[in-house]
Amino acid sequence: MTTSLPLSPDYDAWPIEADLEAVSFTSRLLTVRWSDGRESRYHGIWLRENAADETTVNPATRERILDLSTLPGWPEITGAEIDEAGALCVNFVTDVGYLRFHPGWLRAHDYDNAGDPEPPLVPVTLWYGGTEASPDSLDASDLFDTEPFCEAEEAILAPALMSVLSKGIVRLRGLPTEPDSLKAIAQRIGPIRPTNFGLLFDVKAKPDPDSNAYTSIALPPHTDLPTREYHPGLQILHCLENSVEGGEAVMLDGFAVAEALRERDPKAFTTLTRVRWCYANTARTTDYVWYSPMIRLDHRGELLEVRIADFLRGPLQIPFDEVESAYEALMTLQRMLREPGFAIRFTYEPGDAVIFDNRRLLHARDAFEGTSGHRWLQGCYMERDEIRSRYRMVQRARRRRRLTTEV
Amino acid sequence: MTTSLPLSPDYDAWPIEADLEAVSFTSRLLTVRWSDGRESRYHGIWLRENAADETTVNPATRERILDLSTLPGWPEITGAEIDEAGALCVNFVTDVGYLRFHPGWLRAHDYDNAGDPEPPLVPVTLWYGGTEASPDSLDASDLFDTEPFCEAEEAILAPALMSVLSKGIVRLRGLPTEPDSLKAIAQRIGPIRPTNFGLLFDVKAKPDPDSNAYTSIALPPHTDLPTREYHPGLQILHCLENSVEGGEAVMLDGFAVAEALRERDPKAFTTLTRVRWCYANTARTTDYVWYSPMIRLDHRGELLEVRIADFLRGPLQIPFDEVESAYEALMTLQRMLREPGFAIRFTYEPGDAVIFDNRRLLHARDAFEGTSGHRWLQGCYMERDEIRSRYRMVQRARRRRRLTTEV
Repeated sequence: MTTSLPLSPDYDAWPIEADLEAVSFTSRLLTVRWSDGRESRYHGIWLRENAADETTVNPATRERILDLSTLPGWPEITGAEIDEAGALCVNFVTDVGYLRFHPGWLRAHDYDNAGDPEPPLVPVTLWYGGTEASPDSLDASDLFDTEPFCEAEEAILAPALMSVLSKGIVRLRGLPTEPDSLKAIAQRIGPIRPTNFGLLFDVKAKPDPDSNAYTSIALPPHTDLPTREYHPGLQILHCLENSVEGGEAVMLDGFAVAEALRERDPKAFTTLTRVRWCYANTARTTDYVWYSPMIRLDHRGELLEVRIADFLRGPLQIPFDEVESAYEALMTLQRMLREPGFAIRFTYEPGDAVIFDNRRLLHARDAFEGTSGHRWLQGCYMERDEIRSRYRMVQRARRRRRLTTEV
Repeated sequence: MTTSLPLSPDYDAWPIEADLEAVSFTSRLLTVRWSDGRESRYHGIWLRENAADETTVNPATRERILDLSTLPGWPEITGAEIDEAGALCVNFVTDVGYLRFHPGWLRAHDYDNAGDPEPPLVPVTLWYGGTEASPDSLDASDLFDTEPFCEAEEAILAPALMSVLSKGIVRLRGLPTEPDSLKAIAQRIGPIRPTNFGLLFDVKAKPDPDSNAYTSIALPPHTDLPTREYHPGLQILHCLENSVEGGEAVMLDGFAVAEALRERDPKAFTTLTRVRWCYANTARTTDYVWYSPMIRLDHRGELLEVRIADFLRGPLQIPFDEVESAYEALMTLQRMLREPGFAIRFTYEPGDAVIFDNRRLLHARDAFEGTSGHRWLQGCYMERDEIRSRYRMVQRARRRRRLTTEV
């Protein structure tokens, strides 16, 4: 007699929002009714592939070991019932015995009733600038007094991760100002992605610069490393010293600018989603080149990323007749990037770490007076994947706590 | 009087294939005739943006400082001539004085006559397997006796880079077998991309595995880390020890498989370019999820990348009516992946480092007998960008030598 619920195929905990009440099936399709009246259909083949038993999932790694195409035939359903523990039990012609499905997991993966099959972890919120605006700022001075993955760390990280996922930016304050402490800050989220500029890079005026970033000149709004096929999804800039005059940080929501362009000048917007600009960073020992539209949309037509950096564009190489309209669209965008209504401006204080989505936000810098003091930021890159993984861990911990409280 | 050619906007050297012989212009368009009879048209605005003078390019970094939209108007051409050094000189209404263009650079960026505006560095060559096939293998035992960026290093690296760019794989032989020497091997190409599995990862059976890779079970053909929005473009596996029975390496050209699928079953191919599968790697402290088609095409309909790993797929979440055809296409692909005609099989020898395109090649492994000896590979990830940058440096060095020989 079965008395407990089966494992889910993953490491996660799945609270039970509703109980299974009834099940019916045909050879390829199974329908369940839940205690709140909802009906959900599942394909037999989908169920077979997502079973959690040891013929399907390696119990040590929770990774799938089943190759569907090695089954002797289509896994047709020959029986189904709800057992005493509340699990869905299904028998397939290709298997001996029932496979059991956790009702909380089944409900969470109810693709038959899913609105958005790929819901964002946190909805995207566009933002605008102006003189009063500043990035979400959070006190993180206790971060290093917490253990990784404990609730106290979560209390600091969770709102920071949410700001980055929704607005593309957060400012953590009160962090250490020792050189290289950015490594430990970043590692609370995930691995750093090194580039030819190093694991960490120092943003300060330096002799023999290999990038305009390492001078004291103003930088126009841009994303970093657009010259890569895969340009980094996250950037962290950590302020160690700032006593110069000028050198204010300027940030724009590139998605807000792009949506405003779509509204005001749809033709220019479409041009910038199509024209493949050349991005090039030719230095003494490296030579990065990539071709891409400035604005990329996902399969739903929503903004996926922007790739903007005038100082890293190489010579445009597109069909002759498309050149003038490409430049017209570019100049429309360039003019918008100078509108004060999009930009927030702030001054880095020592101990600030600004985490931002490098494929959404544009950052810029006023010129600063190199002799008026010291300005030293350390920076690093990561991927959006890391922030999403970390945020999912927060969600998983909350589900687990909720489940523990319920039981 | 001008006697020497101007700088190019970048660090590169541009041999002069043909001399400028004649120039004519309208306010927005300039036409040159070359000594070999070719005619090339350039837009005035394109020329203005790509000038190499100090109002356009920061001389210290060779990066652009001009923002076109800040010019008082469209940069119309008011004069053009070829000077005594052979440079094209153009005067714009918005500037005082002539801007000079290097004829070798102009010719190399002749978008008016370009066939493919984004030519591949090395053409892609599809390959098939069979019992006789093995990866291109190169003796690299002298690699660490050479200085980075010298001609002796280039003699080893250039053919390796070419194999990776054309076939997606190369095997370097005779390298050191000290643990962690992969770091130094990789750094001859570019920076390593660390993941939650570390800067280097050890592929050997280990207790409490967090991936099927770290067991001794067989692994089906797959790409690594498909659970990332940006999954790594390159992987290096470096063999330190291999005395086990079994555990042969198996590699397939995922592009060859995909093209065969396009030919044999166009409907299944199209389905796999459209259906967004869920890739998920749920471990104890990380939770990576991404949605993507298994086959991605570029803007020309050519293969950009494949993303295949049955053991890292989460539950499919797509509209109900598309589920069965998605699984039919998947199983067609799975059956092809088992055809011996696609696979090359080889045994890693200590000192081998196999560099392969992780978004093109599929790698697999036979089960091995964990108690029959030791099998230890170290691996790391990089981006395709690094191999392309390194190969462009080879091309640049060759252009420079050619130029030096000519002069």
